[in-house]
Amino acid sequence: MSKNLTSRAEDYSKWYNDLVIKADLAENSAVRGCMVIKPYGYAIWEKMQSALDQMFKDTGHENVYFPLFIPKSFFSKEASHVTGFAKECAVVTHYRLKNAEDGSGIVVDETAKLEEELIVRPTSETIIWDTYRKWVQSYRDLPLLYNQWANVVRWEMRTRLFLRTTEFLWQEGHTAHATKQEAIEEAERMMHVYADFAERFMAMPVIKGTKSESERFAGAEETYCIEALMQDGKALQAGTSHFLGQNFARAFDVKFTTREGQQEFVWATSWGVSTRLMGALVMTHSDDHGLVLPPALAPTQLVIVPIYKGEEQLKVLDAHVQPLVEAFRKQGVSVKYDNRDTHKPGFKFNEYELKGVPLRIAVGERDLKEGTYELARRDTLTKESVKADEIFDRVHQLLEEMQKALFDRALKHQTDHTIKVDDYETFKAQIEGDGGFVLAHWDGTAETEASIQEETKATIRCIPLSTEEEDGFCVYSGKPSTKRVLFAKAY
Amino acid sequence: MSKNLTSRAEDYSKWYNDLVIKADLAENSAVRGCMVIKPYGYAIWEKMQSALDQMFKDTGHENVYFPLFIPKSFFSKEASHVTGFAKECAVVTHYRLKNAEDGSGIVVDETAKLEEELIVRPTSETIIWDTYRKWVQSYRDLPLLYNQWANVVRWEMRTRLFLRTTEFLWQEGHTAHATKQEAIEEAERMMHVYADFAERFMAMPVIKGTKSESERFAGAEETYCIEALMQDGKALQAGTSHFLGQNFARAFDVKFTTREGQQEFVWATSWGVSTRLMGALVMTHSDDHGLVLPPALAPTQLVIVPIYKGEEQLKVLDAHVQPLVEAFRKQGVSVKYDNRDTHKPGFKFNEYELKGVPLRIAVGERDLKEGTYELARRDTLTKESVKADEIFDRVHQLLEEMQKALFDRALKHQTDHTIKVDDYETFKAQIEGDGGFVLAHWDGTAETEASIQEETKATIRCIPLSTEEEDGFCVYSGKPSTKRVLFAKAY
Repeated sequence: MSKNLTSRAEDYSKWYNDLVIKADLAENSAVRGCMVIKPYGYAIWEKMQSALDQMFKDTGHENVYFPLFIPKSFFSKEASHVTGFAKECAVVTHYRLKNAEDGSGIVVDETAKLEEELIVRPTSETIIWDTYRKWVQSYRDLPLLYNQWANVVRWEMRTRLFLRTTEFLWQEGHTAHATKQEAIEEAERMMHVYADFAERFMAMPVIKGTKSESERFAGAEETYCIEALMQDGKALQAGTSHFLGQNFARAFDVKFTTREGQQEFVWATSWGVSTRLMGALVMTHSDDHGLVLPPALAPTQLVIVPIYKGEEQLKVLDAHVQPLVEAFRKQGVSVKYDNRDTHKPGFKFNEYELKGVPLRIAVGERDLKEGTYELARRDTLTKESVKADEIFDRVHQLLEEMQKALFDRALKHQTDHTIKVDDYETFKAQIEGDGGFVLAHWDGTAETEASIQEETKATIRCIPLSTEEEDGFCVYSGKPSTKRVLFAKAY
Repeated sequence: MSKNLTSRAEDYSKWYNDLVIKADLAENSAVRGCMVIKPYGYAIWEKMQSALDQMFKDTGHENVYFPLFIPKSFFSKEASHVTGFAKECAVVTHYRLKNAEDGSGIVVDETAKLEEELIVRPTSETIIWDTYRKWVQSYRDLPLLYNQWANVVRWEMRTRLFLRTTEFLWQEGHTAHATKQEAIEEAERMMHVYADFAERFMAMPVIKGTKSESERFAGAEETYCIEALMQDGKALQAGTSHFLGQNFARAFDVKFTTREGQQEFVWATSWGVSTRLMGALVMTHSDDHGLVLPPALAPTQLVIVPIYKGEEQLKVLDAHVQPLVEAFRKQGVSVKYDNRDTHKPGFKFNEYELKGVPLRIAVGERDLKEGTYELARRDTLTKESVKADEIFDRVHQLLEEMQKALFDRALKHQTDHTIKVDDYETFKAQIEGDGGFVLAHWDGTAETEASIQEETKATIRCIPLSTEEEDGFCVYSGKPSTKRVLFAKAY
């Protein structure tokens, strides 16, 4: 197949969109801002879900399911939450349609108007904390460590496949604790779980940190986040974990009796990652030839393509390859044997390159005679000839090597594009130019943050956990500062 | 814990509701008709999902995700579908809220009215077939074998936890085929997959059959179903699989070029099961002591409870049980060791009985000395003393035995409550009395079907695949008939 991909250098944004569509990950639907996730894209998302779900369970969480709809009045209960969330929402006002009297189709039945409108959940803190009130009486009922996999809707004006869609899929953890300390530990733990997932499975290095006050989740006292750097020098927020203090417990009157017999409000966290990670995955590794997928998340890790002339040769190859496929499968390698006779090998090679299949074996009659396979590697686009009796070891070795190589390459890109800047002219030039992560001193005020954003479009991605205290002067106001924070333009 | 369950004999319906709530499966939410699925209930649903998902993949299907919202006009396109589905729906009319001018809270922003209303999907045929139009050009693009796990909303007037809720979770398969024959085979295959799942995992025997015309899915040419019999003699439709003919292809103009170069409409199927299966599971096996779960779907298959006095004894037991737990886990048994010191053994026994944990080991100091365990079995409520070196074999044996015993017991109940009836007086008395499955001749007309339903509340559950052709006379009209069909009152 011919790929006709826009190159990254030409137009990074168009390259991304082309790739998501041509690699069959997702496409736009008939509903504004909502996407259709196609089988190949969904298979990658399933792998992400499965790994994350296991990590959540290993840290003591259980899954639950709360309603899609939230009564409108719930949003008014937590003051800062309403400002942040209850605005661009899908609102259900009626519950019945009827045939139009003039026969022109179906219309909303005006007699079936809801007394109170229902909001399609943009996030579920309100309905969950309204429920937790019934579940928590005593310190013995705590902690509640629950998560749900769900769809949510935020009425976005400008949407992009995976990165920003009106409906998206995500998981949202909502935990309840007896002490402030325990809740903070939970919020931090989940940030580390997200970082671990991003680095081990997505091969995507991230910077862990906390958000500045103005970038915090609506209703949170602290927002922890992981930030990744895309190939075009823009940052992408890949996951957030919030310490919510007692804000939602207060709003929904969730109290418990402590060990000492006192009544206290419960402490809360919430944390989530979404199908946005799919966009991050694409933009971290892929190239002008198509997707590059880390083996840990590739639905197909190895494809085998027969090179043959005529049915007879194909039969011989089929018989030879079948046991190979079964052996790989037993070893836990997800393998596909593509012996379609409707497409030529070159077409197939292109297709699997586009789809980011990590390894490809090509095998023809001559290979059979010589006892070798041609093994191609997607990230480096290199080929090697491997002896038949070494093929299993080599495949396992390369899958591991590739997982690591992708991470190392992404980490090098991140390191190369993280620079310290001490004056505003250089800051502006950097953001305007190559972009990347810019570590600069900040005076800690929302005013400075807003001015910088207005003038450069860069935002504070996070106050990194890893940076040391260091005396300096705010890059914008010149006021004293004790720590550098991470600036970037962001998705 | 004290259970205070209503008994089945007293009030079956109340017993069911009590049990679902007390066993922590689900509860009603603040949103009318929508439920909260609690961790224990969700863990069972996850086990169902996982088994079904594997069965779908083994039969060649892939997962996808289509939007939650469907443009209103889509429903008018398939004539019979609109009558069946586009009525009791949640309708999104606006996409923004704002602060009320009088400061009283938040209100719908009337300036943010959608040009065309969006319907929260009650089922996804319309949006999926609108998309398939873009995916199918040639016979080479077929078949499409896709499934999605999703939430759907049908505005039900009377709701019951799991059995009938406004929002529910389900999977919906939507396949596209080049020939009628292939589509029929697919629809039949999925009915068999559902039956296999019900019998092997849920230990729930089902009757496979086709629906009468009036009970068919809106837009289907044939609806295949599996029907189960609950303990109270009422039937429950546990899964349906529809052969949709070319109806949706015609409505959404989905044509393909055949091998011979002709343009033809594509053939369709759709099939689904939902969280309703949770209700079926509860009502098939559970008793007046609580849930009874088949081992194949029990989140915890074995619980171990220490019997001790004082911390010293507990320490000894802990040290003894820990390796046991690890050994069971390695063998694939999901096991829980409940050494909470806040609750007495009797409380714990009650709790695990209520939650339907298949097996329970109690172990005290005397057992340690004698080298035995007390092993209790949930379905029969029997106990036995097992020698320590035989415990692993015995547990595995009992788990298997119990899975089979539950099926056998349910099958016996179904067989005992399936009777042939040849006259209408007996028919009415049977339906009015014990209920159960009633096999009777029917003249094949919708009028007779409707009259029987009106007079007895019994409906034709299905035209069973398994019943033989047999000459007879319609139990209602006396007209000739060649086959008995299955009547019952149903959930």
